[in-house]
Amino acid sequence: MTIEIIPVEGIPIVQPGDNLPAFIADCLSIEENDILCVATSAYSKSKGYLRNLAEIIPSKRADEIAEKCGEDPRFIQAVLDEADDIIIDYPFILCSLPHGHVGVRAGIDHSNVEDGRIIVLPPKPMEAAAEIREEITKITGKNIRVILTDTCGRSFRRGQTGVAIGWSGMPAIQDYRGDTDLFGHVLEITEEAVVDEIAGMANFVMGESNRGVPAVICRNAPAWEGHDTLYFTAEEDITRKAMKKNNY
Amino acid sequence: MTIEIIPVEGIPIVQPGDNLPAFIADCLSIEENDILCVATSAYSKSKGYLRNLAEIIPSKRADEIAEKCGEDPRFIQAVLDEADDIIIDYPFILCSLPHGHVGVRAGIDHSNVEDGRIIVLPPKPMEAAAEIREEITKITGKNIRVILTDTCGRSFRRGQTGVAIGWSGMPAIQDYRGDTDLFGHVLEITEEAVVDEIAGMANFVMGESNRGVPAVICRNAPAWEGHDTLYFTAEEDITRKAMKKNNY
Repeated sequence: MTIEIIPVEGIPIVQPGDNLPAFIADCLSIEENDILCVATSAYSKSKGYLRNLAEIIPSKRADEIAEKCGEDPRFIQAVLDEADDIIIDYPFILCSLPHGHVGVRAGIDHSNVEDGRIIVLPPKPMEAAAEIREEITKITGKNIRVILTDTCGRSFRRGQTGVAIGWSGMPAIQDYRGDTDLFGHVLEITEEAVVDEIAGMANFVMGESNRGVPAVICRNAPAWEGHDTLYFTAEEDITRKAMKKNNY
Repeated sequence: MTIEIIPVEGIPIVQPGDNLPAFIADCLSIEENDILCVATSAYSKSKGYLRNLAEIIPSKRADEIAEKCGEDPRFIQAVLDEADDIIIDYPFILCSLPHGHVGVRAGIDHSNVEDGRIIVLPPKPMEAAAEIREEITKITGKNIRVILTDTCGRSFRRGQTGVAIGWSGMPAIQDYRGDTDLFGHVLEITEEAVVDEIAGMANFVMGESNRGVPAVICRNAPAWEGHDTLYFTAEEDITRKAMKKNNY
């Protein structure tokens, strides 16, 4: 079956207090089982997860890191406030967040917000995705699936891609363990991070600049079975361990 | 505009010597500007990029690594034959390949091939993508874009996703450098790895097991401008440098 990737066009610039799911439902007809992908920055802005740089007083540690990586110390303080672990602080600051995501600058965003303000990730992205899902059901009567997307760099490959930082109504990972291939062999590739694959495609349609498309529908995607353990623990993650040991 | 993600269904199990583009063109009507995503394993099989484990004589180094990471020494020898650098060899073997891709086990695949044979990545995946593109144009008269996809793990997040290892007819990365956001600020996120985002979505539709869908069409995707420098050099890549220093 053909899957459709549909930009939700016509959403006004979101302000704190806005009901983003209502904006989305106003712009297009949502169907049962749609996967609604929402840019975290727009969601965070609607919920007021913003900070004014002018109101942040950097700690000594923030000052030190800011000097190393050439950032505004108030911005680095905001990163430290969000992070539960700093993996490296040079040549850029890479952190883990309490919900498991690992991102440069704790995923804090300068773009698409008025001067002097920054957008932080929602503190509980799984609950945020569930809340968007419920709100859409309340408005439209449809049962849907939701992915909150963010844009993120990666190892080995240049450029950012969209990833999922929250999801609701489906497992993050399709679990093939025990399945067989066309010749009956048990598969080696066993866990597919489907929410990230869909978030990436949605991110392409959203764009990064002034296109103003903070939501994308993925329609006709089949259901899959699996689990929600999308993040390695610090102990499991060999990249993280290697980077921590090598923090310059 | 709605983008369509269309599985190419009905392709027979590919054998060495088969004309995979012709199989694809037989199964659905290709349109101008389609992005045809092809699973590398199917392409490699059609070209005979296969090895028989029984014919491989492992070196001393292959024996040593195989013991550390619990693999067949002949398989490890095949990995060493493909790799141009071993980044780590425990708890799994992670290599870079001459064309720039970094992958576990050099991207060699046991799945969907008859017993005792393994599938290696095409040695020149950019040329492979260009060749598929030309062959489709020859058969259908349509000018298309092509992505060769592979399935790959990543840092920080569990599970594999589809990535591009070859492409033709479009730049790998959409370059936003100098663009502005909705408020006129110069963007921070500046390079989007679009070929990987599309490869991921295609990979979801292909599936990993016995679905037998080695090709997917992405239709109506807009064009983008950018460049092809998808891989970090070893010197630029801080993950790679940290891992190499920490190889156990």
